[in-house]
Amino acid sequence: MKRPLILVANDDGISAQGIRNLIRIMNDFGDVVVVAPDSPQSGKGHAITIEATIRCDKVTIEKGPQTEYSCSGTPVDCVKLAVNQLLDRKPDLCVSGINHGSNSSINVIYSGTMSAAVEGALEGIPSIGFSLLDHSHEADFSEGEEYIRKIVKSVLEKGLPEGVCINVNIPKTEEGKKLKGVKVCRQAKANWEEEFDEREDPKGRKYYWLTGKFVNYDKGDDTDERALENHYISVVPVQYDVTAHHAISKINNIL
Amino acid sequence: MKRPLILVANDDGISAQGIRNLIRIMNDFGDVVVVAPDSPQSGKGHAITIEATIRCDKVTIEKGPQTEYSCSGTPVDCVKLAVNQLLDRKPDLCVSGINHGSNSSINVIYSGTMSAAVEGALEGIPSIGFSLLDHSHEADFSEGEEYIRKIVKSVLEKGLPEGVCINVNIPKTEEGKKLKGVKVCRQAKANWEEEFDEREDPKGRKYYWLTGKFVNYDKGDDTDERALENHYISVVPVQYDVTAHHAISKINNIL
Repeated sequence: MKRPLILVANDDGISAQGIRNLIRIMNDFGDVVVVAPDSPQSGKGHAITIEATIRCDKVTIEKGPQTEYSCSGTPVDCVKLAVNQLLDRKPDLCVSGINHGSNSSINVIYSGTMSAAVEGALEGIPSIGFSLLDHSHEADFSEGEEYIRKIVKSVLEKGLPEGVCINVNIPKTEEGKKLKGVKVCRQAKANWEEEFDEREDPKGRKYYWLTGKFVNYDKGDDTDERALENHYISVVPVQYDVTAHHAISKINNIL
Repeated sequence: MKRPLILVANDDGISAQGIRNLIRIMNDFGDVVVVAPDSPQSGKGHAITIEATIRCDKVTIEKGPQTEYSCSGTPVDCVKLAVNQLLDRKPDLCVSGINHGSNSSINVIYSGTMSAAVEGALEGIPSIGFSLLDHSHEADFSEGEEYIRKIVKSVLEKGLPEGVCINVNIPKTEEGKKLKGVKVCRQAKANWEEEFDEREDPKGRKYYWLTGKFVNYDKGDDTDERALENHYISVVPVQYDVTAHHAISKINNIL
């Protein structure tokens, strides 16, 4: 059997520990091509570069069998470039991450890592975004590895439903708490209660830093937040059809 | 009755003709506060600014009753800043646009204009994104105005379902073709077939321009693309719950 072609992207940048761990794992599953941002692109959502040019150069970040490209664009640009310009054939799998920090619940729509996976799904490629609930650069990616391998193996063998990618979040390793397994969930109803940190520059002109607190309003047992609290890995199927089908008749009554 | 507080944002930038037209219309409906990007932010999707500071200054772009702020951030930053920092109370309505160019079908996920409306909905504000299918700076926004007024009036009176904003696309005015009315639709299954325009800079190093062709794969009669082809204004209810609920059991079988 031919070895699968696996595209690896992320939003933390090509040198981040998360993607280095993911590349190492993926090398066991197939021929790996990495196309990842040359700098951190967290919070870039589904942004694409249309008013500027994009650089994309072959690089060697680490020794290994993988081929790597460093790209000046967004995570979505990376996937588009890979599929439409750099690769000879459509990848058998697109994986994004491992993100440093959660992409559960509403974070999915802000996440460059998840948008890369969504773009993969749009291109008809089975696609997975992986995130670890630990922002630190020295995060420990080892405990989740066994589950990442299981999920990748299953998706390579069985594919994913059309129009759907999966959002995999892995709880942070804690003393005395082992991962309990995998739960397929829905996205919890949660939001960021933002506060802006207003400051003055040396000339007295105002500027702002975005900051905020994540608040989960959802008491459901079937949410990703609940699974993660209980030390399960959460898997949410994510779609790019954002039509609120249930609301069509209501909108007809309103307009 | 108190006049409604209306927040106006966009992605083409605060000086674009589309937002100037929308502000003029909104001034008839309530007290208008504009928070819009200081430069074009098309294709920014749901990007937020977390690795850099944000500027946001009160400006006067045009005379009128509106209050205006020019913001260095993305369209989503504009809405977050407005709601969490600049305004005393939650707006009664958030409108975004009028976008120069279509945000129908899959364009919704790349669009900064639509992401501003989605962010408004996340904040619990009835929110509408307006787009005109004409990219030119001198686009004629007049023919759609009557319908924009009708839609705004209805949404101010009746609100929108929780968790849902609406994506309104207006066909381009053409000689001899009048707008036929409004159709509530679903997002068509379509995609961009990208080609990258590969060039060399003066030093011989490669760079790319993203380019592509929009392809509609959807033959359904209930899509936004079909409505627009038939010279109707399309209205798609859009949600930020991107869970593919129908796929949860399938994913359970795959993993």
